[in-house]
Amino acid sequence: MMTKQTWSQRFESALHPTIARFNASINFDIELIEYDLTGSQAHAQMLAHCGIISLEEGDILVTGLEQIRSEYQQGEFNPGVEAEDVHFAVERRLVEIVGDVGKKLHTARSRNDQVGTDTRLYLRDQIQQIKSQLRQFQHVLVGIAQQHIETLIPGYTHLQRAQPLSLAHHLLAYFHMAQRDWERLGDVQSRVNISPLGCGALAGTTFPIDRHYTANLLQFEQVYANSLDGVSDRDFAIEFCCSASIIMVHLSRFSEEIILWSSEEFGFVTLKDSCATGSSIMPQKKNPDVPELVRGKTGRVFGHLQALLVIMKGLPLAYNKDLQEDKEGLFDSVNTVKACLEAMTILLQEGLEFRTHRLAEAVTQDFANATDVADYLAARGVPFREAYNLVGKVVKTCIATGKLLKDLSIQEWKQLHPAFAEDIYEAISPRSVVACRNSYGGTGFAQVEQALLAAQELMKRY
Amino acid sequence: MMTKQTWSQRFESALHPTIARFNASINFDIELIEYDLTGSQAHAQMLAHCGIISLEEGDILVTGLEQIRSEYQQGEFNPGVEAEDVHFAVERRLVEIVGDVGKKLHTARSRNDQVGTDTRLYLRDQIQQIKSQLRQFQHVLVGIAQQHIETLIPGYTHLQRAQPLSLAHHLLAYFHMAQRDWERLGDVQSRVNISPLGCGALAGTTFPIDRHYTANLLQFEQVYANSLDGVSDRDFAIEFCCSASIIMVHLSRFSEEIILWSSEEFGFVTLKDSCATGSSIMPQKKNPDVPELVRGKTGRVFGHLQALLVIMKGLPLAYNKDLQEDKEGLFDSVNTVKACLEAMTILLQEGLEFRTHRLAEAVTQDFANATDVADYLAARGVPFREAYNLVGKVVKTCIATGKLLKDLSIQEWKQLHPAFAEDIYEAISPRSVVACRNSYGGTGFAQVEQALLAAQELMKRY
Amino acid sequence: MMTKQTWSQRFESALHPTIARFNASINFDIELIEYDLTGSQAHAQMLAHCGIISLEEGDILVTGLEQIRSEYQQGEFNPGVEAEDVHFAVERRLVEIVGDVGKKLHTARSRNDQVGTDTRLYLRDQIQQIKSQLRQFQHVLVGIAQQHIETLIPGYTHLQRAQPLSLAHHLLAYFHMAQRDWERLGDVQSRVNISPLGCGALAGTTFPIDRHYTANLLQFEQVYANSLDGVSDRDFAIEFCCSASIIMVHLSRFSEEIILWSSEEFGFVTLKDSCATGSSIMPQKKNPDVPELVRGKTGRVFGHLQALLVIMKGLPLAYNKDLQEDKEGLFDSVNTVKACLEAMTILLQEGLEFRTHRLAEAVTQDFANATDVADYLAARGVPFREAYNLVGKVVKTCIATGKLLKDLSIQEWKQLHPAFAEDIYEAISPRSVVACRNSYGGTGFAQVEQALLAAQELMKRY
Amino acid sequence: MMTKQTWSQRFESALHPTIARFNASINFDIELIEYDLTGSQAHAQMLAHCGIISLEEGDILVTGLEQIRSEYQQGEFNPGVEAEDVHFAVERRLVEIVGDVGKKLHTARSRNDQVGTDTRLYLRDQIQQIKSQLRQFQHVLVGIAQQHIETLIPGYTHLQRAQPLSLAHHLLAYFHMAQRDWERLGDVQSRVNISPLGCGALAGTTFPIDRHYTANLLQFEQVYANSLDGVSDRDFAIEFCCSASIIMVHLSRFSEEIILWSSEEFGFVTLKDSCATGSSIMPQKKNPDVPELVRGKTGRVFGHLQALLVIMKGLPLAYNKDLQEDKEGLFDSVNTVKACLEAMTILLQEGLEFRTHRLAEAVTQDFANATDVADYLAARGVPFREAYNLVGKVVKTCIATGKLLKDLSIQEWKQLHPAFAEDIYEAISPRSVVACRNSYGGTGFAQVEQALLAAQELMKRY
Repeated sequence: MMTKQTWSQRFESALHPTIARFNASINFDIELIEYDLTGSQAHAQMLAHCGIISLEEGDILVTGLEQIRSEYQQGEFNPGVEAEDVHFAVERRLVEIVGDVGKKLHTARSRNDQVGTDTRLYLRDQIQQIKSQLRQFQHVLVGIAQQHIETLIPGYTHLQRAQPLSLAHHLLAYFHMAQRDWERLGDVQSRVNISPLGCGALAGTTFPIDRHYTANLLQFEQVYANSLDGVSDRDFAIEFCCSASIIMVHLSRFSEEIILWSSEEFGFVTLKDSCATGSSIMPQKKNPDVPELVRGKTGRVFGHLQALLVIMKGLPLAYNKDLQEDKEGLFDSVNTVKACLEAMTILLQEGLEFRTHRLAEAVTQDFANATDVADYLAARGVPFREAYNLVGKVVKTCIATGKLLKDLSIQEWKQLHPAFAEDIYEAISPRSVVACRNSYGGTGFAQVEQALLAAQELMKRY
Repeated sequence: MMTKQTWSQRFESALHPTIARFNASINFDIELIEYDLTGSQAHAQMLAHCGIISLEEGDILVTGLEQIRSEYQQGEFNPGVEAEDVHFAVERRLVEIVGDVGKKLHTARSRNDQVGTDTRLYLRDQIQQIKSQLRQFQHVLVGIAQQHIETLIPGYTHLQRAQPLSLAHHLLAYFHMAQRDWERLGDVQSRVNISPLGCGALAGTTFPIDRHYTANLLQFEQVYANSLDGVSDRDFAIEFCCSASIIMVHLSRFSEEIILWSSEEFGFVTLKDSCATGSSIMPQKKNPDVPELVRGKTGRVFGHLQALLVIMKGLPLAYNKDLQEDKEGLFDSVNTVKACLEAMTILLQEGLEFRTHRLAEAVTQDFANATDVADYLAARGVPFREAYNLVGKVVKTCIATGKLLKDLSIQEWKQLHPAFAEDIYEAISPRSVVACRNSYGGTGFAQVEQALLAAQELMKRY
Repeated sequence: MMTKQTWSQRFESALHPTIARFNASINFDIELIEYDLTGSQAHAQMLAHCGIISLEEGDILVTGLEQIRSEYQQGEFNPGVEAEDVHFAVERRLVEIVGDVGKKLHTARSRNDQVGTDTRLYLRDQIQQIKSQLRQFQHVLVGIAQQHIETLIPGYTHLQRAQPLSLAHHLLAYFHMAQRDWERLGDVQSRVNISPLGCGALAGTTFPIDRHYTANLLQFEQVYANSLDGVSDRDFAIEFCCSASIIMVHLSRFSEEIILWSSEEFGFVTLKDSCATGSSIMPQKKNPDVPELVRGKTGRVFGHLQALLVIMKGLPLAYNKDLQEDKEGLFDSVNTVKACLEAMTILLQEGLEFRTHRLAEAVTQDFANATDVADYLAARGVPFREAYNLVGKVVKTCIATGKLLKDLSIQEWKQLHPAFAEDIYEAISPRSVVACRNSYGGTGFAQVEQALLAAQELMKRY
Repeated sequence: MMTKQTWSQRFESALHPTIARFNASINFDIELIEYDLTGSQAHAQMLAHCGIISLEEGDILVTGLEQIRSEYQQGEFNPGVEAEDVHFAVERRLVEIVGDVGKKLHTARSRNDQVGTDTRLYLRDQIQQIKSQLRQFQHVLVGIAQQHIETLIPGYTHLQRAQPLSLAHHLLAYFHMAQRDWERLGDVQSRVNISPLGCGALAGTTFPIDRHYTANLLQFEQVYANSLDGVSDRDFAIEFCCSASIIMVHLSRFSEEIILWSSEEFGFVTLKDSCATGSSIMPQKKNPDVPELVRGKTGRVFGHLQALLVIMKGLPLAYNKDLQEDKEGLFDSVNTVKACLEAMTILLQEGLEFRTHRLAEAVTQDFANATDVADYLAARGVPFREAYNLVGKVVKTCIATGKLLKDLSIQEWKQLHPAFAEDIYEAISPRSVVACRNSYGGTGFAQVEQALLAAQELMKRY
């Protein structure tokens, strides 16, 4: 059966049904319906306000649109593929409800500016939700960090033990990544929150509309200053997908660490049963599925960013149908980031137990205090590079003889360099090693306490 | 409500419901159900064949699985999120149907090798379908080409007119791209069609199974020779996504050309109403939505390829939950390529009309025969670079005086170079310009006829 | 020959020469040398200021580093692969120049915070340069737009003629894209301009350093509040690469349009000889190489963004050698964006001539005024969707009879709908069609003049 | 200074020097020079063979080109940016050497088919080199595997210990990945090894050339059957970049494992000094830079693949300048893969020592034998899912009481299930657990021995 479309008067024959299905976006852009209704209500109010339609007509349109909203919310409005897209589906239903006046709704508007408006309203909302989730994630991090200021954990570079850390300090690194994510989303939001409504198909409109009026009703901060730009700009979606990708970078790094920490070999955390899963065949298994999935889902978010860039590359102005492809990847990026943030927050809050005895043991059994020996000498006037070279030799000898630095006798120390004294033992104890890194932003306990206070201050900004 | 999982005996408390939803794959891996049933039937037959279960038990399992297939096909089997994944959903239903013997199905198998088997069976099937679609696309191309051997069309480099072409020759360029796609998919298929069944979780199994028996039943060409590799390899999915991306490169190039050709400015084709769409606001519009959407959908296929690469990067052996993320992008790539090939084939077959008078006009009104003047001289002993330089000057003069090459008098030609004679006019007529490019693979009519015959030969290979 | 490294005291045997070459970054990070010297000078001053070294030692270090800068600028300092990286190269040369005091420079610092500092100084500088280039690009756009307020050009959606536009309006769309680019880079800059210096290897340092002192000397706005985050954060580079990608999206869209416009078929612009190139074989060709290359170079910038994301995915804290791979793609993105902006600005300024007679002709020969007929009726009380449908039929009839809308007699108009009167002819003349789209941001001449004034205001912000 | 180009006769003014620099490719396509010379020599021979030039002229051209090769190899031929590209650089030098006959070389050829020929010759060569490197890598793997058939290593899924493995089996997983890489490159090679020479600019040529003659001289297996396709096809480069990406996936996975294994926590391998590096500040550090860099370099190879796809998307036929951008990413992918394979091979061969005592210890201290208990019961008639559930409970109890499975008394076993007998202890010893997985492709020692023999057979194929 051939399908008859809204725009079909200029056409002699109907659309091939396969092509109609290929073109239709209703199965995914239905997600925008409430934003579409809100946008159309504002448009109707503006038309009435500007005298383009009567005030009464304006009211009828607003009420009719509200009825569609309630039908949708109650599951009674389910347009099929013949509706082509959510915009036509709404317009048709509106005409069914309010009669011919419904046909006036699209005056001084095009699907091009309409879909741009819907997408921005949607994304503005979603960004707000993600920002709240980031705050929740930060709260949980700070809560755990507060309990672990004096818990020591090996710090790594190159996955080799480097210098011991306050566990709180380690966790706060993720707090600060989330903080940047939160701020970055704010920047994106300011470029999302611009109204294209009234840009028309590409050139503006001949009707005496008031774009600032609709922008105001819809709480947009600005209006697009150029109509071509307004209908063809997708920068805001790309920027969001980039920010989403960076959030996933952060979550994937944390995930990697949790996976490592929960391995038999590290043994730094235990996953609680409520947040771990088993194997279909190996009864002993307890798998860190959540962080693994988060790490895996990073791929799709990066992929959607690339997809969007590819779509936009080299498109001539103004609107092209290619732009319909901006939505699914955007929606999936939003949903993925939200699901991952939610799952990671639950995991942190309920699913992770730090095995403090393992951590305490770990920090005493390596050469992660070697820098402190070099610093010890440098602080006593030995040029750093010389001190460094000397300690390198000591470590080599220790490894050969199966000793750690703390096992050297004071004579051995003094033979190495006369500057060594009894206080070397204290200087290289893990607690002291951590406490001494008291430079601003360092892992020293005093610094970490300051950092926790500052973190709480930061979270007050909404 | 906490969810109780198949693997939950080792666990004290149930999975957090949000985490359960986060982990579940049933909403998308249900697409694999028929392949899962087929794979399980082969596994059950093998278990019986090898004496690991009784022949009677084998029959019960096979019959029970067949019942699930029929329930599914009739829409009566709809497992929810509590089933976790399609494999558990099937196993549970099987136990409901056949009782305790159903619990023996998973002997000597793991979800890791099971899901690998399912995915390969799925992809093998889909590749076969795409190959058929490519053949159909080629048939349509050849059909149109046969009608347009002597239709001339401007040939472009840098989107500047370069040399006129036989339209058939132009269309056959796409035939050959599709042919490479078809061959490439064949290569991929040989690396898809390898059985991981029996690799177990990662290490093989202690049961005396016969992997070649199941491979044979499932028509796999080979079996994985290393169990770790068998459960963790996703090369075949990456390779497919790359091949899908290349198909989209080709379709997007063709789409770009159709979009150009259907513009007012080019005017080389008319889109028929059954394959074009209108505007919500501009009543005169007839938009090439199909090629635009195809061009736009290129982005998502590239994105899925990148996503899959990102997922795989740096994963330690063997199975990791990240691999669950391999499916949605793969399925969407398959579906997108199929939908685009179908739509483009319909568009070519029913939706596109070449405006031959516009084409005929186009090829007479430019300097696309300038190379032939240079070749004319070179064939008469003038070094090519000299001839080229001379013609460059002629073109410059013509442009300044508003003439084309055909408008020059024989005196003017002879003044330019004594080698010119009356036959220069014939030599630079579009038809002659095309006919003369009779080198192998060139646009000369004789070549094109040969090429069409060869194309038909190629299509016989299935 | 085995190579001896700076850090080699703990090592018994020397590095395999192939491995040394594989690890070395000196061949590309030499680009950072001046930033490295500046950063080291600030570090030395701080060490002296804080009493960690003497004031005299501080002076010696600063002077020695300045000597290396001057050697480098005069081409006398060319470290080879044996230097491993620019940091070690500088340190070694410093010791050669100033003797043992040079070995004190690295006190309270690690390569991890050092390279982070260098990269941020570099990128801060480059962003500033790109912002200036964007301003220059905008100036040229505005200059051309001012000459073409009343030049009409067909406006397109789906590459089909939609509604005629003021050429100035079209060009200003790119002005606004560049404006967003400029603002976005400003946001990025605020996250680039944060000092990691003093974060040490990962944990801060035991020395009583003053991180705000160096930050101040180097004009950083903030310091990293968490040392792990400070050494492992590459968000700023990802963000920049995303912003660079969006710039390339914009330039590639403009490029596509210029390529179209300079085709025989469109004929809207002529490329001047100084900005076009020829063919090695077709003497008539004049190719738009610049916009083609810009469009092509879009790929590499997207690729570098993806590469960086891939590098960062799933990296455990803090520094890993993978991070060394952040540089080449970043540098190439910077260089590509700068080269493309420069080339496009030259092309606009010197290489492009609008063929105004072709443009004037183009806007009179299509149905791009059809919306205005519908608007004409809607303004006279006919519901928009009805008016739209009516006009659709008219266009269909016109096409069938080979007429344009302006060719219809007043009787024909009135037969179509009684609301039509003589003023319909004026209403659908291209000039009037453009002038009437006087909604804010629309293409109406009055709007465009306002927009040009506003654009000049915007450019005053630096 | 304005630059005068080879194609400049049709042009009135010279190219803007910045634009000339922007367009030039000589700084990177010089890498193709020897392939360009070889291709030109074949072309000259063909021209003579076909009577298009005289035999004597053919000889002069071939000899002149050979002289350029020798000048280049001795460092005497260094064309600057004014040469535009390698093809013009060679042609100019040729005319300097042989005089006017040099101007005949470009007869019946265009840069479009010429550069396509050069790139394919280059890539064919490089693929051959990479295939050899893969073989070398495989040889080293097999060599190490042969020494470790009976060395046990924990096998992981989800980075949780799953079942113990023969280390040889683990290493052979990478052998098989490399084998697929080798085979995949063979498939790519068959689509690289097709000659576009003679396709001309896009349409073939009017000269009576013999494309099979040049193809034969250059050892191409086929010639392109369609001239448009021949000059615009870059599938082969995309395919190669995809294969390169998959190689990097494999190397990055191996790298991740080596990084884990060399951590303090795993401690499964020691990096030898010749293949590890130190820290600038932490004297004890010994960092796995090689695998980290390999893992990091994965990003750039994925990025180049994406870049190439982006370049190709939506390009109309035939040649566009965008295609010039295909080279740098391709060259860098080739160089990166070669450098990574070389470095990893050296690392395996000389830089890695397995700490067998740590491995032996590791496999006795976990529940990786739990599956074997379930299999033990299943083999004695207990349905697998029941057996699995029972063992899950046992493991839970063991963890609570701090025991391993081997620590349970025979009474405890029998209480759990009467089917347990004394042989359970043997059944769950690591050696037995591994030995029993004797299914085809499994880790059982007998299987591994077979697998090693088969691997040696495979490597004989070149």
